[in-house]
Amino acid sequence: MIRFTTAGESHGQALVCILEGMPAGIPLAAADVDEQLARRQQGYGRGRRMQIERDTVELLAGVRAGETLGSPIAMMVRNRDWKNWSEIMDPAPHAGDPDPRRRAVTRVRPGHADLAGVLKYDRTDARDILERASARETTARVAAGAVCRRFLAEFGVRIGSHLTHLGGIDATRPEPMPADINAAADSSQLRTLDPAAERAMVARIDVVKREGNTLGGICEVVADGLPVGLGSHVSWDRKLDGRIGAAMMSIPAVKGVEIGIGFEAARRTGAEVHDEIDRERDRPLAGNVRRRTNRAGGLEGGMTTGEPLVVRVAMKPISTLMRPLQTVDLATGGPAAATAERSDVTAAPAMGVIAEAMLAIVLADAFMEKFGGDSLNEARRNYDGYVSHVAARLAD
Amino acid sequence: MIRFTTAGESHGQALVCILEGMPAGIPLAAADVDEQLARRQQGYGRGRRMQIERDTVELLAGVRAGETLGSPIAMMVRNRDWKNWSEIMDPAPHAGDPDPRRRAVTRVRPGHADLAGVLKYDRTDARDILERASARETTARVAAGAVCRRFLAEFGVRIGSHLTHLGGIDATRPEPMPADINAAADSSQLRTLDPAAERAMVARIDVVKREGNTLGGICEVVADGLPVGLGSHVSWDRKLDGRIGAAMMSIPAVKGVEIGIGFEAARRTGAEVHDEIDRERDRPLAGNVRRRTNRAGGLEGGMTTGEPLVVRVAMKPISTLMRPLQTVDLATGGPAAATAERSDVTAAPAMGVIAEAMLAIVLADAFMEKFGGDSLNEARRNYDGYVSHVAARLAD
Amino acid sequence: MIRFTTAGESHGQALVCILEGMPAGIPLAAADVDEQLARRQQGYGRGRRMQIERDTVELLAGVRAGETLGSPIAMMVRNRDWKNWSEIMDPAPHAGDPDPRRRAVTRVRPGHADLAGVLKYDRTDARDILERASARETTARVAAGAVCRRFLAEFGVRIGSHLTHLGGIDATRPEPMPADINAAADSSQLRTLDPAAERAMVARIDVVKREGNTLGGICEVVADGLPVGLGSHVSWDRKLDGRIGAAMMSIPAVKGVEIGIGFEAARRTGAEVHDEIDRERDRPLAGNVRRRTNRAGGLEGGMTTGEPLVVRVAMKPISTLMRPLQTVDLATGGPAAATAERSDVTAAPAMGVIAEAMLAIVLADAFMEKFGGDSLNEARRNYDGYVSHVAARLAD
Amino acid sequence: MIRFTTAGESHGQALVCILEGMPAGIPLAAADVDEQLARRQQGYGRGRRMQIERDTVELLAGVRAGETLGSPIAMMVRNRDWKNWSEIMDPAPHAGDPDPRRRAVTRVRPGHADLAGVLKYDRTDARDILERASARETTARVAAGAVCRRFLAEFGVRIGSHLTHLGGIDATRPEPMPADINAAADSSQLRTLDPAAERAMVARIDVVKREGNTLGGICEVVADGLPVGLGSHVSWDRKLDGRIGAAMMSIPAVKGVEIGIGFEAARRTGAEVHDEIDRERDRPLAGNVRRRTNRAGGLEGGMTTGEPLVVRVAMKPISTLMRPLQTVDLATGGPAAATAERSDVTAAPAMGVIAEAMLAIVLADAFMEKFGGDSLNEARRNYDGYVSHVAARLAD
Repeated sequence: MIRFTTAGESHGQALVCILEGMPAGIPLAAADVDEQLARRQQGYGRGRRMQIERDTVELLAGVRAGETLGSPIAMMVRNRDWKNWSEIMDPAPHAGDPDPRRRAVTRVRPGHADLAGVLKYDRTDARDILERASARETTARVAAGAVCRRFLAEFGVRIGSHLTHLGGIDATRPEPMPADINAAADSSQLRTLDPAAERAMVARIDVVKREGNTLGGICEVVADGLPVGLGSHVSWDRKLDGRIGAAMMSIPAVKGVEIGIGFEAARRTGAEVHDEIDRERDRPLAGNVRRRTNRAGGLEGGMTTGEPLVVRVAMKPISTLMRPLQTVDLATGGPAAATAERSDVTAAPAMGVIAEAMLAIVLADAFMEKFGGDSLNEARRNYDGYVSHVAARLAD
Repeated sequence: MIRFTTAGESHGQALVCILEGMPAGIPLAAADVDEQLARRQQGYGRGRRMQIERDTVELLAGVRAGETLGSPIAMMVRNRDWKNWSEIMDPAPHAGDPDPRRRAVTRVRPGHADLAGVLKYDRTDARDILERASARETTARVAAGAVCRRFLAEFGVRIGSHLTHLGGIDATRPEPMPADINAAADSSQLRTLDPAAERAMVARIDVVKREGNTLGGICEVVADGLPVGLGSHVSWDRKLDGRIGAAMMSIPAVKGVEIGIGFEAARRTGAEVHDEIDRERDRPLAGNVRRRTNRAGGLEGGMTTGEPLVVRVAMKPISTLMRPLQTVDLATGGPAAATAERSDVTAAPAMGVIAEAMLAIVLADAFMEKFGGDSLNEARRNYDGYVSHVAARLAD
Repeated sequence: MIRFTTAGESHGQALVCILEGMPAGIPLAAADVDEQLARRQQGYGRGRRMQIERDTVELLAGVRAGETLGSPIAMMVRNRDWKNWSEIMDPAPHAGDPDPRRRAVTRVRPGHADLAGVLKYDRTDARDILERASARETTARVAAGAVCRRFLAEFGVRIGSHLTHLGGIDATRPEPMPADINAAADSSQLRTLDPAAERAMVARIDVVKREGNTLGGICEVVADGLPVGLGSHVSWDRKLDGRIGAAMMSIPAVKGVEIGIGFEAARRTGAEVHDEIDRERDRPLAGNVRRRTNRAGGLEGGMTTGEPLVVRVAMKPISTLMRPLQTVDLATGGPAAATAERSDVTAAPAMGVIAEAMLAIVLADAFMEKFGGDSLNEARRNYDGYVSHVAARLAD
Repeated sequence: MIRFTTAGESHGQALVCILEGMPAGIPLAAADVDEQLARRQQGYGRGRRMQIERDTVELLAGVRAGETLGSPIAMMVRNRDWKNWSEIMDPAPHAGDPDPRRRAVTRVRPGHADLAGVLKYDRTDARDILERASARETTARVAAGAVCRRFLAEFGVRIGSHLTHLGGIDATRPEPMPADINAAADSSQLRTLDPAAERAMVARIDVVKREGNTLGGICEVVADGLPVGLGSHVSWDRKLDGRIGAAMMSIPAVKGVEIGIGFEAARRTGAEVHDEIDRERDRPLAGNVRRRTNRAGGLEGGMTTGEPLVVRVAMKPISTLMRPLQTVDLATGGPAAATAERSDVTAAPAMGVIAEAMLAIVLADAFMEKFGGDSLNEARRNYDGYVSHVAARLAD
């Protein structure tokens, strides 16, 4: 069982993450994490902060001489902007001027956690909520995901993503998909595989930015190289679909998730949905069969099938608008324009990177659950034994 | 924290469920559960089994004199068909003829857990998998959900659902929605609120049945009467969106979930998505504000807003087709037509009832998390204190 | 990860248990469970109920043709006395005479959960508490433990126990211990390995029984055949010591637990406590070393060492005394003699059997955590790979 | 539900802790944590490192302006010795000389995690194990515990500890106990309340130190001011005894735990063990009753009774001896004297402080479970409601 916990406020000192339960012996360098952190920060339509931050990780615990130790891995990503916020966000009790709360956020933003959070946690300053509800928190998720994908890479698992929709504009999915999705997607400033759509999206962002408005989008995440049998059908909370659903829906601003053809599956007949099965040599991970199609998106009965795992995630537009929406002011009780804190136009391109990280965490957990093992060697030995066994089931 | 665990095979002796963590003093009768079990079994297009079963619950533990005790609640729903299956499904070691495995299922069905399960769990008879991967398991979920909704009802929470799509046919959402969704939906044989669509759906089912094919659909689940602040923004796995995502995606055959306007939110601008906020008296549950719209579906920042919670769930067609798909036979390794065990054309109408149950479980858990309390009285006292406090925040 | 949940009241219809997370393919018959249930019911000094009950299990789910399926295992042990209690304990709402609560328990027993439970759960009848706080609940634990020990037996793990103390009388630990502890202990009516002490204990029980008083005792539980490396040092809640501590201290009436020489370790110097290590061939489970002593009780740094795991558990006397203690009456608020419901003099001999079950559950969980595997074959393959690897570490 | 995770190696960069699930609004300053960290470092018989470290915490997340935010609280305690170890413990992959593993630890220490850990995690250098298995990890526990005790203090809960035994020398428990245990204990260099015993203990430490040997001890932890009804009888893993057992047995080197009179309870009759109950005004936390004695140590049926909670914990001697024990050398396979890394003679005095921290965490968790609440105000409102209710149960 893998456990991962994040901490950190958007303008606090640092984002922190502890990833617990990874085996010993995984090769890991700070650069492996930094590479993913950089990917999270890319994307046309991001605001000034992405330039400020340029995140780098400090491996505080759990790694020695370039290898994991099996102990909890603690990672810290400092907020480079901290010096500008150290007074407002100071953890120390306030003594004398200036009062960190003198600039309290009270004009709560529609679509954000501000209002619900202030009421739930009994705060007067919505900053106490928004600092944690911020997408900045996903930095820590990406760091944890980077370790998990490093682990999965040892088993040939590769996780990529691309943007399939942005603010009303669809990107056409290339057929066939590139072998290395991220190599292609990361070279696009919007992480889309459709250059024509990309141009339209950029134009759309420019317009919407001038309007002080924001945009959402849809990403597709694909994991290749998975063996059949991750997850389980036996209990509701072991099903991989549900665990993926939880992971994706927990990403800030995500409002929908689907696997394989997803909602479209509800519109077709069974014959048009279910993937027929053929024998095929040299596909040991799938038990030496192949689905003629992959509408199931690599999951049947809560388990991987050995086909690529395909997940799509829908993100709503950013909820901080420079042309603010109508709301109430907590301080006066009267109507007000919502607070407009510095923000991006869209976070949808980066969302794919975050969704990759969450998928990596879910999959690494499913790996550990199935294969056990306290060292990479042991996990690999167990994995190899299983794959050999599965491959032999339908052998000639 | 509520824990719920289910057990039981489709043609085994019984479905069993333990629901742990409910407070003492909740009024509960077997009839409360049976009513929900009956709702799960309705729906045009169901096969013969629905007539056979007519489920009733036995309250084995945790309830006395019509009240919960605070101890784990164990419920059992016997499979009435058991006498016909007691030999095939006998738990006892096989001694002499007939061999329970002589009728092994080896022509694994596309879309079902059969193949992945057999490989993962190292079985030769796919019956060892399909008996648990069956939708029959949801009986136990509905039983647990019935207890949770009985608890929630004490706080004025009402959960309903209706079918919005079936096999290519959309139902129009009535405007305004009926005050009691289930009163309306349960009087429809497909649990839809659009009579014209219902007629078309029935005709569609009849056609598809003749073809030996199957259908999926989409349900919408709505929870009314929730206070602001269930769930949390502080950690990925406390966000209510994620917990709902997990619960819904864990329902057999579900391939997608969305909250509020869901995927549509990715297509619009922020100004067209986020719900502006007005002061409004006499809405204590929402902190005396109202969203002008409810595109967020009652969730912001992983927390309830006090507006109705709206979730939509997409189910793929049933994977057992009477006109079977192509597959491999595990016994021979060669191609074969998939097993065609008795089955319905569609389970989509019932899926809404199951989704209601899962939502009830998630919400009861979120209630317990926020309000604590070991008795209904204590939970109510804590709830009342919170609602009073929240209502006073923006009081004049 | 193994999860196990129990339900059931002492005089309710049945005890129920769901054990989730066991692999498929474990040979299991009802007799395997019944054997352990019978062991729990033995022991001089038990009251009449032990004769009434003669527990037998019904395997409701998760087992087919004498093998586990990998799905949740549901077990039910009916209370044979139910017919005499069906009115008092009826789950149905009370309608008409006789009122099940007319015989409410209000003279709360010192030492029992009665008073704290009634206050916490806001009940007026302590029966609502004591029915669940009863030692009868351990029946369900023993059932779950029986499945776990069946699993562990496949790896050569053997768990036994014996009584080392009863009500002031020490039993001398034989040196060397018998190879099969339970074969010896189960032939004693008090489960002790010291015949002289047994005679004194029986006499003590007889005296104390006449006085209307009760006795506690101490059991020692030993697990043989464990490989080095179960548990972990990396996180507080992965340490096997802690998990054993939780399991043992959760047994009703247990007030202390110690591992190896336990409290005695605090009285000696390091040189007198720590077990020196020698090379020794043919001990693959321990990495081909041997501790010269086993004062650590088979655990170092939260992990098994390959030496026998030794745990001692102290149980207080039964809290229902036939010559009752002084208490308050909840109904009157005034002083009263505590309720004296039918009870045993001592449950200490049976406690060893319960502690064995709890240890089996903890160890099976630690096995699954380390070795993973969804089938017994897979778990064994992983186990064999690990043991070979460990054995080769110090090979010549 | 509170979750707490620690990370950090003994000579790594820092110890890190994330405490998740605490409500908002708890007053908290770094000094509150530092005070506890300092208490952990006191004690006669500690080695040089205690002087080196003088731990101070950095509140990285979850605290603003002297109050918790409800978000995860991340704390970091730097290892001041890091500069001397940064090469050996460098997380970066090794490139060029000097090889951080050139000083590999291979002469594994009896009593420590060294050997089991190296085999389990497949390491060649026992430093990869011992760095995490070190008692230094408890720094992070004490930090988390400091936050929990700050929370509990708001409800009048006070947790103290004192040393009752050290290496063969008993301290007499004063009668009555001082009202403020820690005020008395912290003024003793061994944290004992018996000055005569303290002198003997100091002399014993001096002797044992000269011998290159080590000592263990026993601490008693007491929590005052707890309301009746924390914990539960309903499920094995909700019982407070079990949760305390887990917490205490997870402390490095702890080999035994007992509650109330503990093991002694097994030696007496029921009449000599169970605490008779009297009405008594002005004890609202206990439901206006008093136990005439507190042999149960404040726990009945897995729940607090309202009497002081009393736990005793036994620690074995430190396993690093300056006059080393016999072991094997992993590098050669041959016999060797165990590694002798710098170490203390005894950690028993500090162990009480760690046990206090663990108890604070368990109790804060039980508080949150019972009272819920997302802010201190809400938790207090719920608490007050419960205490009023309980106090009225037996009111005249």
